[in-house]
Amino acid sequence: MLTTTDPRTGVSAATGLEPSSAEAVDAAARWAASAAHELQARGREFRAQLLDAMAAAVEEARDELVATADSETGLGTARLNGEVSRSAFQFALFAEAVREGSFVEAAIDHAGDTPLGPGPDVRRMLVSIGPVAVFGSSNFPFAFSVLGGDVASAIAAGSPVVVKAHGSHLLTSQRSFEVLQRAAAAVGAPRGTFGIVFGQQAGVALVKHPAIKAAGFTGSLGAAKALIGAIEERPEPIPFYGELSSINPLVVSPGAAAARATEIASGLFTSVTGSAGQLCTKPGIAFVPEGEAGQAIVDELVALTAASSAQVLLNDRIRDSFDAIAARLEGAGAAPAAVGAGAPEGSTGFFVPPTVLESTAAALDAELAEECFGPLVVVARYGAVDEVREAFGRIPKSLTATLHVEDEETELVAALSSTLEASAGRIVFNGFPTGVRVTWAQQHGGPWPSTNSQHTSVGVTAVRRFLRPIAWQNAPEAALPVELRDAGPVPGIPRRIDGVLVLPA
Amino acid sequence: MLTTTDPRTGVSAATGLEPSSAEAVDAAARWAASAAHELQARGREFRAQLLDAMAAAVEEARDELVATADSETGLGTARLNGEVSRSAFQFALFAEAVREGSFVEAAIDHAGDTPLGPGPDVRRMLVSIGPVAVFGSSNFPFAFSVLGGDVASAIAAGSPVVVKAHGSHLLTSQRSFEVLQRAAAAVGAPRGTFGIVFGQQAGVALVKHPAIKAAGFTGSLGAAKALIGAIEERPEPIPFYGELSSINPLVVSPGAAAARATEIASGLFTSVTGSAGQLCTKPGIAFVPEGEAGQAIVDELVALTAASSAQVLLNDRIRDSFDAIAARLEGAGAAPAAVGAGAPEGSTGFFVPPTVLESTAAALDAELAEECFGPLVVVARYGAVDEVREAFGRIPKSLTATLHVEDEETELVAALSSTLEASAGRIVFNGFPTGVRVTWAQQHGGPWPSTNSQHTSVGVTAVRRFLRPIAWQNAPEAALPVELRDAGPVPGIPRRIDGVLVLPA
Repeated sequence: MLTTTDPRTGVSAATGLEPSSAEAVDAAARWAASAAHELQARGREFRAQLLDAMAAAVEEARDELVATADSETGLGTARLNGEVSRSAFQFALFAEAVREGSFVEAAIDHAGDTPLGPGPDVRRMLVSIGPVAVFGSSNFPFAFSVLGGDVASAIAAGSPVVVKAHGSHLLTSQRSFEVLQRAAAAVGAPRGTFGIVFGQQAGVALVKHPAIKAAGFTGSLGAAKALIGAIEERPEPIPFYGELSSINPLVVSPGAAAARATEIASGLFTSVTGSAGQLCTKPGIAFVPEGEAGQAIVDELVALTAASSAQVLLNDRIRDSFDAIAARLEGAGAAPAAVGAGAPEGSTGFFVPPTVLESTAAALDAELAEECFGPLVVVARYGAVDEVREAFGRIPKSLTATLHVEDEETELVAALSSTLEASAGRIVFNGFPTGVRVTWAQQHGGPWPSTNSQHTSVGVTAVRRFLRPIAWQNAPEAALPVELRDAGPVPGIPRRIDGVLVLPA
Repeated sequence: MLTTTDPRTGVSAATGLEPSSAEAVDAAARWAASAAHELQARGREFRAQLLDAMAAAVEEARDELVATADSETGLGTARLNGEVSRSAFQFALFAEAVREGSFVEAAIDHAGDTPLGPGPDVRRMLVSIGPVAVFGSSNFPFAFSVLGGDVASAIAAGSPVVVKAHGSHLLTSQRSFEVLQRAAAAVGAPRGTFGIVFGQQAGVALVKHPAIKAAGFTGSLGAAKALIGAIEERPEPIPFYGELSSINPLVVSPGAAAARATEIASGLFTSVTGSAGQLCTKPGIAFVPEGEAGQAIVDELVALTAASSAQVLLNDRIRDSFDAIAARLEGAGAAPAAVGAGAPEGSTGFFVPPTVLESTAAALDAELAEECFGPLVVVARYGAVDEVREAFGRIPKSLTATLHVEDEETELVAALSSTLEASAGRIVFNGFPTGVRVTWAQQHGGPWPSTNSQHTSVGVTAVRRFLRPIAWQNAPEAALPVELRDAGPVPGIPRRIDGVLVLPA
């Protein structure tokens, strides 16, 4: 029997759920495979309706979902309500993208003479890659879990999904799965459109199952490596899209420090401690200039941190890891500058104190740039901007890199641009990297080890991960998907015809 | 000293080339890295001019290239002249695509209120992934080698390229590299835009080099696995885009057999024996109906084959492999139906006889569907169409699948469509899969083991393999690539603005 634990108390309770047996994993994967063809064949409008139904079902279950997740994650109802809104918005946005139809990349080259001789009619579009395994994350019980972006983008692609529930919020996962099932029933989606499995062994079995054709994952590098290892044992490799580890460096320019020390310190404190610092985009290193202006930032950050309450982490492993990494960073030479309140007296929950460590840009290396899940930031003081650039070369690459800078510091922007672009998938100016807008132009993914792919897991283009191209040559109209036909219902989507992108009338 | 061998005589000669030392590989990769930023920074128009210069330089060197390749490959001047034209066309097509600019997927979401609260300005586009290693293939000394599509698409992406020359046409590779160098000089491309290395060890060292950020490969599954193994030893994984192994099944419907037996047999013979059967898209299995009409196809194919001359293969390993696989197929139950002439008397070249083997759809399995590089096809007779469908489930998946069918056989098309689409990346109707049109809608890539990626290696969208996304949040205009700016020179490319695809005026 699997248990669930309230992180505020550390008390566990039975869930009524069992780890999925090998037979249960096999059945889920087979049902997904049996749904794959029908889900693709019903076309884009059906998938858009399914996504709309998913959005509606999430909203309907909001209160129950939030209450369940709050007791399993300790993230608080404000944050969790926001996350439910985000999940629903995400499903609706993908419905819009499915209707818009650009993502199928429809292209038609008519038969004709070419400089290389007569060319056949060739038509290409992207179709579902097949059933997708999705691994829910610990830190987003909704938006990166059963009701998350990987599920939304897989369904948009026409791919059935089998989710591996995260062990840290099993009941939330089960309730979320029931929400998906209600949405599927509402529109008559084929059985097998959604599946769920529980337990680590089931997750490994899932990515090894021949019916599974891709995996989406948000979690630790260690867990990812175990799954990648399992995938490497398959006769047929499949893509594994992992969102893994990120230190998210933030740089404050001398001008920004002079102009906005208090504002930057307070924003940084909020960004480091929001959701108890358990966000993939939490800034883990802040480069702050030497001298008075920089010192004002540090002083304010230290004051806010010293006055802060203990924060509750998602589970005991994350708490233990926080303590161990904080100790390692100190051992590696980062000096404690401020530590907030520890666990309340007598508490058995997974509390840790918000923590600021201090180091220098010149001292920074991979050891001092270890990602720490939780409310901890290393402030690295620098003299010349070259020290920052060189430090970026020694620390791991990230999902995001942030620069606080004044308008007139154009030379500094020019000096850092290529470093920032080489180091991250999203470059934030004068803001904070936490809070990832779910939109068409979003990019949540960067160089290794932040992700292992050239794709995003947030925003509309995340759908590309679960698609594969097919070309049809000299095909009769009836053998073509509607998106590629000449006659019949107008597809109403952008298409590239003989090399020219054409918008629907 | 590396040698080159004339496959028509088997006689080897010195090339004057040496296997690249570890230092030479390191230098090539470092030079590529040093060119990467500048190549990206010079912008799309510069890359288009470079690609145009590459096309022009190829045409200028045509005669020398063809003569050199003919003596190293035995492919003949007609085929090789066609391939040079294809290389030049390919460079010019990518120049066109770079100017058109859709491939950067420029997207702008302006700041504004959203259902989830105020959203920042987010702008996204694809940029070069960094230096790319390209492994030339044996069977296309131009179009899939130093002057090939991987190089064209990498340069289009803004990625410097280091090519590993194929050992079967070293002098052609070196001459081709000199062509690229002339093109680079003509437009003043940064040093390191192109590099070349020789020898298998150099190839392994290349994909392990930290400066290399992706690899494009066309070749055997075995060679690919060795390179994938080397990549797995890297601390930072990189994508390996492999075009590997393909049996390319072809199905003749009862109606097509009745209507066009002679035409189909003759087309099939040409497709199986063209370029001595050494094409990735050669049909290796032909499903032919039982009964008279099917027998007419087999008879004609047998007649053409029995009357055919020996064909010369690219090198002794491919010749030995052809002989071994032909023997294995016979051992597995495929009966020899026709064998053309063997090597001319006294020849020391790498000749093999065009060969037709016969089996049945019911008997087909992975063993009988082993890819054989060279002029060999297995004819599989079938009764009901279900036998074909079931056989597809037992044989490896492919780059292509082909169906010869009459207009009125709509039920048969419907019955086979999903099987064909699950089995290949390109579905050909009433034609032959050899001859891959280089165009916008082309797809050359399919399910494992035909490729290991969800991309094409032929056609314009091949560029996507060598790109990665970056988003800029609230960035000052000067920190943005021109493609994402509001003011300044009009980018003149399609962009997605607040979710709406907008074409240039």
